[in-house]
Amino acid sequence: MRQVAVVGAGVSKFGVRKASYRDLIWEAGKACLDSVPGVKPGDLQGLVVGSVMPERTAFQSHISSLAAEALGIRPSALSARTEHMCASGTVGIRYAYAFIAAGLADLVMVLGVEKLNQPSGEEAILNMGTGVDREWEAAFGLTAPPCFALAAQRHMAAYGTTEEQLAMVGVKNHNHAAKNPTAHFQKGASLDQVLCSRMIATPLRLFMCSPITDGAAAVILAAEERARDLTPRPVWIRGTGQALDGFQLTSLHEDYAHWPALKRASESAYRMAGIAARDIDVAEVHDCFAIAELIAYEELGFCEKGAAGPFVQAGRSDYGGDVVVNPRGGLIGCGHPLGATGVAQAAELFAQLRGEAGARQVPDAAIGLTHNNSGMGEHVVMIYGRDPS
Amino acid sequence: MRQVAVVGAGVSKFGVRKASYRDLIWEAGKACLDSVPGVKPGDLQGLVVGSVMPERTAFQSHISSLAAEALGIRPSALSARTEHMCASGTVGIRYAYAFIAAGLADLVMVLGVEKLNQPSGEEAILNMGTGVDREWEAAFGLTAPPCFALAAQRHMAAYGTTEEQLAMVGVKNHNHAAKNPTAHFQKGASLDQVLCSRMIATPLRLFMCSPITDGAAAVILAAEERARDLTPRPVWIRGTGQALDGFQLTSLHEDYAHWPALKRASESAYRMAGIAARDIDVAEVHDCFAIAELIAYEELGFCEKGAAGPFVQAGRSDYGGDVVVNPRGGLIGCGHPLGATGVAQAAELFAQLRGEAGARQVPDAAIGLTHNNSGMGEHVVMIYGRDPS
Repeated sequence: MRQVAVVGAGVSKFGVRKASYRDLIWEAGKACLDSVPGVKPGDLQGLVVGSVMPERTAFQSHISSLAAEALGIRPSALSARTEHMCASGTVGIRYAYAFIAAGLADLVMVLGVEKLNQPSGEEAILNMGTGVDREWEAAFGLTAPPCFALAAQRHMAAYGTTEEQLAMVGVKNHNHAAKNPTAHFQKGASLDQVLCSRMIATPLRLFMCSPITDGAAAVILAAEERARDLTPRPVWIRGTGQALDGFQLTSLHEDYAHWPALKRASESAYRMAGIAARDIDVAEVHDCFAIAELIAYEELGFCEKGAAGPFVQAGRSDYGGDVVVNPRGGLIGCGHPLGATGVAQAAELFAQLRGEAGARQVPDAAIGLTHNNSGMGEHVVMIYGRDPS
Repeated sequence: MRQVAVVGAGVSKFGVRKASYRDLIWEAGKACLDSVPGVKPGDLQGLVVGSVMPERTAFQSHISSLAAEALGIRPSALSARTEHMCASGTVGIRYAYAFIAAGLADLVMVLGVEKLNQPSGEEAILNMGTGVDREWEAAFGLTAPPCFALAAQRHMAAYGTTEEQLAMVGVKNHNHAAKNPTAHFQKGASLDQVLCSRMIATPLRLFMCSPITDGAAAVILAAEERARDLTPRPVWIRGTGQALDGFQLTSLHEDYAHWPALKRASESAYRMAGIAARDIDVAEVHDCFAIAELIAYEELGFCEKGAAGPFVQAGRSDYGGDVVVNPRGGLIGCGHPLGATGVAQAAELFAQLRGEAGARQVPDAAIGLTHNNSGMGEHVVMIYGRDPS
């Protein structure tokens, strides 16, 4: 199997954007191409686009071809859109990664994009229901916020996790986002602000939830020899894992505060990379809701099961702690344009592991992890690493 | 790169079905699992689902997870949906293929599914417009039928192709479908019937067009060692190619009767397989409209440029000819449930190359090809082969 590296990355401004899919694609794609002087659009052999619901928000499928044309790319090896709800972007990275690893392509762009606020934010909230089982769950109101609220309540009951500890995830990620010029929110937040924000699904308050965001992100992946030609500082894909426990909430394990599929996905990725959880310097985890970040600490092995509340409270997931989690602001601070999220996480690690993350730089970051869930029972993990220095 | 084989296949009944996505998934998935006695759902490490518009027709995204749960599969290596309009199923096969070839998985199901007649066939026709550029083409009526009609008119003007020759594609494929119990149409058709059917977009008449069809299909792919354990007659993926000229009609080559991207995609696939066009015994080509099959003969190298009309007229693409094209009835006879089509083509070749195609069997078929376009400027080709006898 060939080694594969990220050699370029770009991100659009995230937010409620007066922009079309095409505008967002162009913004992120151009930023990505500009980051690798040696690559012109015509050099790319393929394009994979992660996107969840352009059919609903733009009456448009076939978006990988639209994106290729917008960017001047003429795929000669692969072109596809991937969708796996909130993990769509990372699932796209895995498509291109497998193609390059197998020797079927050498240089491929992966782009994630979502224009959710279309025609309105209210419509977007309805559209988000497509990610849940329509016939058996979404139709009865069991969409994402109540599901994750159940997990939070269970975690509080089982482990004594407090509302303040949940809020601290919101504070950390809003404050990180304040240093990220592409983030949806850039004002930071105090503990009081988070705890006094509107209740969405008990105990999850507004500032503990990711917003409805428009945005795009792109990375360029290259086979080993090509990567070394293109940049002195490639960022390698070291490992990956994906696992599923179930789709319907009712088919999950009995205890919603345990996510065994995430544990299995991360163990696969660690094994492939030949590392352990303690080796991770920086992690982009899927904080769609604050409880998701806490449970991720545990299932990823950053702390013992049940210890995530004290872990965030002690600052162990912040700068100066054991592992910096969500330096770009996470889904809570940056926003969560579904298909774009996994690719934006990869773009952040590309910057972090090259020492180019500016005010957000994690000192001497060498190994990073990204995590996405697309429901509480479905997880995907990637491990990225720089060359040993 | 590891060798990869198809080891099982199953297809649902195609037609206007009183069935949900879940029903269709279950029908094809179960038929596929039943075809490989050695594989239980729990043995599969992954599931890739090709599907275009469940967001529109079932208010449902995230359909790979829904499908995994419906079939009792718990992915431990990969799970994703792929979308590339009419090529979505084949693009899904390529995802699983690359994963297995790279050594990232050993045993994966690929399933294609579409429930288009929902809430109605009329709504489905509107929904098909999502495959074309919404802002610049579909909104002005430039959907698939007029695009392909332009190609047909150009082919007639340039090469003297006749309406009768176009109709012969419809006759052949309707008659093939009459021998396929899962086909949408099973009554066959005479030249008179095709030539007297309703005009859709001049010169394409109803029986020269694929209908609005519901259906699903599934195949199981395995790494070489695993494949040999599971069946004495694996069907190998020998080559693959994909290429894009453009998305908007206006950005294509000047002459709509030339499809250079198909030529490039097939050349890539032939090169990888180490074969030439003349080595193909049986081909499943993307006859969304009769003209597409004629142009495919030429770009795939079955005949010279411009000679496709006489080629079909002489019976050279039928049983007893140079290459049997669309033995299961093609998109015109079987129907075209978008995401399912590419997988159903693979399922047909699995049967043909194992000598299990019954009344449709192409004698001594050893090498087969599938082709999908997803617009006139975007093509994907796969080559399958049995073990040398």
